[in-house]
Amino acid sequence: MDERVREHAAVLVDWSARVDPGDDVVISVAEDAHELAVAVAERLGEVGANVVTTYGSAELQRAYLQAHDGDFEAGDHEAALLSAADVYLRLGGGRNTAATADVESETRQAYSRARANIRDARMDTDWVSTVHPTRSLAQQAGMAYEAYQEFVYNAVLRDWEALAERMATVKALLDDGERVRIVKERDDQPRTDIQLSIADRTAVNSAASVAYDSHNLPSGEVFTAPADADGEVFFDVPMTISDRRVRDVRLVFEAGEVVDYEAAQGESVIESVLETDAGARRLGELGIGMNRGIDRVTDNILFDEKMGETAHLALGRAYDANLPDGESGNDSAVHVDLITDLSEASRIEVDGDVVQRNGVFYFEDGFEAAKRPD
Amino acid sequence: MDERVREHAAVLVDWSARVDPGDDVVISVAEDAHELAVAVAERLGEVGANVVTTYGSAELQRAYLQAHDGDFEAGDHEAALLSAADVYLRLGGGRNTAATADVESETRQAYSRARANIRDARMDTDWVSTVHPTRSLAQQAGMAYEAYQEFVYNAVLRDWEALAERMATVKALLDDGERVRIVKERDDQPRTDIQLSIADRTAVNSAASVAYDSHNLPSGEVFTAPADADGEVFFDVPMTISDRRVRDVRLVFEAGEVVDYEAAQGESVIESVLETDAGARRLGELGIGMNRGIDRVTDNILFDEKMGETAHLALGRAYDANLPDGESGNDSAVHVDLITDLSEASRIEVDGDVVQRNGVFYFEDGFEAAKRPD
Repeated sequence: MDERVREHAAVLVDWSARVDPGDDVVISVAEDAHELAVAVAERLGEVGANVVTTYGSAELQRAYLQAHDGDFEAGDHEAALLSAADVYLRLGGGRNTAATADVESETRQAYSRARANIRDARMDTDWVSTVHPTRSLAQQAGMAYEAYQEFVYNAVLRDWEALAERMATVKALLDDGERVRIVKERDDQPRTDIQLSIADRTAVNSAASVAYDSHNLPSGEVFTAPADADGEVFFDVPMTISDRRVRDVRLVFEAGEVVDYEAAQGESVIESVLETDAGARRLGELGIGMNRGIDRVTDNILFDEKMGETAHLALGRAYDANLPDGESGNDSAVHVDLITDLSEASRIEVDGDVVQRNGVFYFEDGFEAAKRPD
Repeated sequence: MDERVREHAAVLVDWSARVDPGDDVVISVAEDAHELAVAVAERLGEVGANVVTTYGSAELQRAYLQAHDGDFEAGDHEAALLSAADVYLRLGGGRNTAATADVESETRQAYSRARANIRDARMDTDWVSTVHPTRSLAQQAGMAYEAYQEFVYNAVLRDWEALAERMATVKALLDDGERVRIVKERDDQPRTDIQLSIADRTAVNSAASVAYDSHNLPSGEVFTAPADADGEVFFDVPMTISDRRVRDVRLVFEAGEVVDYEAAQGESVIESVLETDAGARRLGELGIGMNRGIDRVTDNILFDEKMGETAHLALGRAYDANLPDGESGNDSAVHVDLITDLSEASRIEVDGDVVQRNGVFYFEDGFEAAKRPD
């Protein structure tokens, strides 16, 4: 076995899920995540946890969903399994990212609605989702298999403790700050200059560990929920939204709401997102990507949005974790992330102080210029 | 998908497990049983059952067992899953039948002991065990892959209703009978002539369905528990016992007990079986194989012992199903089946009537000669 697979398993079990001896752990294994599952089982054996392994096969799910009459119910046995579980580890990595492409969205939604209690039980565990680098994911990323493996392990096998500390500094900035400004002035792009109100909002230090209320491995972002937004922003990182390619989206905000939009590709996708509901025209998230192990776009939002030296804004639903207790943020049926590269000709200001320039934070080597805006 | 896979799934779900709409079903999928699992999920979707799929990977289990300190405990989550399940479908078919060969037997036993409650919960469901024909099982059988697929589907895709009826006739014979005699007189073999007392014992019609208290697909045998045995028997079907090849075993019984034994190969294996405990020298089972779809030995006891025109005797533990209520039969830590081919120069008598000659029952076409012994 590639030693990196064992290291991945150790990060997942020890850093991310914090598994203790005697914990009842569910491992969900996608079709081609076998090797990672073996390594995770080995690590859980060393820790002395109790393991049930489920088979997270998209092909199997498609067969079930297509054959069913659509009047779904949640199995008591599945609810019992998850209610009794302490930890849930999802090992993604199937054989075909389009394996369920022909399942009608009504069917998916009916299945999902019927299983709300199962999802709730899973979310009540110390759950962590990760992926094993498979050929299918390499293909989605447009990368050779070995290069994609290298990419995934660069993203996952970080010094998480050190990164969590750096991210804590950014979280403190956002928690204390009232206003974030993002400016980018590249000659070859429409200008970005947007102001976001974040007073009273709490940032999440997403350090790929349940100890930080962060449930994805890799992670590596600090995110909060803007209350208001004004200005224009150009998203130069390409995305796939609702199975369609979207490129070079430009949004204009006034009083928190999108008042103009355009895109070089997939503009109708953006249009349909914005028309979902009132909340879809407002922002639910500002995220700052800080995982420098993720150094390229791979058309997988779990990686792309964590990319170092980027920021993302999400149209739609806000996360409760960012809000004062009992308060609810922007509500919407959607949460669509759009990413902009800040590694060149860019700066992030908090309350007028430049805290990042060209992707480099003021507390990092290579940060240039005064903290005041120029 | 090969249509035979779908037919296999339909036999499993409909005939064997009798799954009803709303049943909570667990499917356990071995590493290479994916295709059968997809077909089973499809059929369960059609039926409207609720499905949890577990990953029955021998490699994963080995990794866990080898890493663990040996102080195992049963997970509450696994017990909860199985206690709430109505049906458990085990789809065997791994990648390597020797995948756990280097796990110490003490470790296996400790793991098994710690999980007795989980085994009990599983046995309380309508459980059925089957195998998907994999290259690993083809290799074990010494067969080409396509030929092995053909073999498995011949064994599984039977007219089970018709076979169950024929087996019911044999069950009635054994239930009513007091004494079975098996005789084989082939020029090239030691003689077989053994008498078995079966008065008050109940035969099981093992028709590959929970409706018959039969939990393996394929099945196709009628078995009972002899109370006494006298005579000699030659087992010409080769076997693997405790990972060692055993061939041409000859046993001599007096007053129910083995008093002499020899084997052309693996005699020391037989010796160690017989020395396990007092019960290991007595018989726990007489089985009559009636699945003519199984027409060759494949070194897999689940198939071999069901082979049409054979009989098997097991040294060791008897099954409660064969005994009057509250009575317990022969007790032993072992249950080792040995098989003899009855297709030539052979007969089975019940209370003096010849009920089978050269593998053919008196109620089948091709049965020759009077019912009285000649």
